Amino acid sequence: MNLILLEKKDFIDRDHVILTGRQFKHLVSVNKVEKNDELICGILNGKIGTGRITKISSECIEMKVHLDTDPPKSLPLTLVLALPRPKMLKRIIENVTSLGVKDIYLINSWRVEKSFWQTPLLSEDNLKKFMILGLEQSKDTRMPHIHQRRFFTSFVKKELPQLSKDSVCITAHPNALKRCPSGVNKKIILAIGPEGGFIDIEIETLEKNGFLSYHIGQRILKVETAVIALISRLYL
Amino acid sequence: MNLILLEKKDFIDRDHVILTGRQFKHLVSVNKVEKNDELICGILNGKIGTGRITKISSECIEMKVHLDTDPPKSLPLTLVLALPRPKMLKRIIENVTSLGVKDIYLINSWRVEKSFWQTPLLSEDNLKKFMILGLEQSKDTRMPHIHQRRFFTSFVKKELPQLSKDSVCITAHPNALKRCPSGVNKKIILAIGPEGGFIDIEIETLEKNGFLSYHIGQRILKVETAVIALISRLYL
Repeated sequence: MNLILLEKKDFIDRDHVILTGRQFKHLVSVNKVEKNDELICGILNGKIGTGRITKISSECIEMKVHLDTDPPKSLPLTLVLALPRPKMLKRIIENVTSLGVKDIYLINSWRVEKSFWQTPLLSEDNLKKFMILGLEQSKDTRMPHIHQRRFFTSFVKKELPQLSKDSVCITAHPNALKRCPSGVNKKIILAIGPEGGFIDIEIETLEKNGFLSYHIGQRILKVETAVIALISRLYL
Repeated sequence: MNLILLEKKDFIDRDHVILTGRQFKHLVSVNKVEKNDELICGILNGKIGTGRITKISSECIEMKVHLDTDPPKSLPLTLVLALPRPKMLKRIIENVTSLGVKDIYLINSWRVEKSFWQTPLLSEDNLKKFMILGLEQSKDTRMPHIHQRRFFTSFVKKELPQLSKDSVCITAHPNALKRCPSGVNKKIILAIGPEGGFIDIEIETLEKNGFLSYHIGQRILKVETAVIALISRLYL
């Protein structure tokens, strides 16, 4: 926890907060904080700054906070990701949040197992928890938006054209002929398939809607590894 | 498993192998292979090619293999990594192996908890298992070498100068003033600290031994995320 993410409900007046629950426990047992310690804080979707601990009890921590700095810049990237298997989902959401991604579309694809859509990890509450971990890690406050789309074709044909306006449109595809560009540093919409990749007809549908397919080398990476490697090379 | 990694012990003659254990179970229950299926195979530290299934019994699979192609190129990178916490270790070794890293030094550092060195995951057998998963993922056969060094100063002063000859020497450090170069594409030795980073005196010791410190942006990433992001930007 490199930043304590505060929400409106934590404030007892303009500049005093009370922390309980997970954050309280973490600060006491892992960070072993003491009275008068200064910690980095931020308010959800707002400024970051510092908080000085004014009181520690057995149940909560009180802090006086001063928030005056903008959070780090977001990446101008929209990530379109075939729904990964549940055990990868948490880490991927946490990782891409820590990298500064703010728009994530979890979509269906031929090779996404139907059961993946049943996981409780896809609940709003759970996804929020994973994103908070990513924000706390990277000292950010701006919560990403996650959208779930269970129909590939209707998403790609009806919604994607509007979303991808003014963006560089990239599909990551191990069998593509061209290597993915690097240092693009502009608005990008990046589509990444499931384990095993998008099937040919999905690649074609994406191409018909303006997406170019690129590989990132001969090695097949796990989706969770490829996502980080791709984002890292697109924004240098 | 994108490649079946064969060892000498699997061969019953020049071009026939018998698979049992983990690989057998995975091929039958996950890949649901059948007789005459052709699979991608490779021999440890050697060529890759294909294997055709000639027999499936309740305990083993027999294949006729033909191995004639070189495995993918390795990265000319030596990774010097402060020993990560055990639950991250497996994933990091698997990931960097899949990215093509062949030399990994796990070293001590001030912020590495002593208990991390006690984990059974550091046994030769376990590390080999994690590397095999990375090789199978990325269709590679060349096993990385992992070296464990429990004394930071003696490693950096006595061993590192020799290791880093003819290499670009980089320390990844969140507080560095310069942004890490990209597309270096040469021999690199990359040092990455533990959670919380190397302490100042460690950074100084590395700098005195020819290492330049670079950050990769304002965001603090988890070590397992940073490793992938760094390797991805260094080799475009």
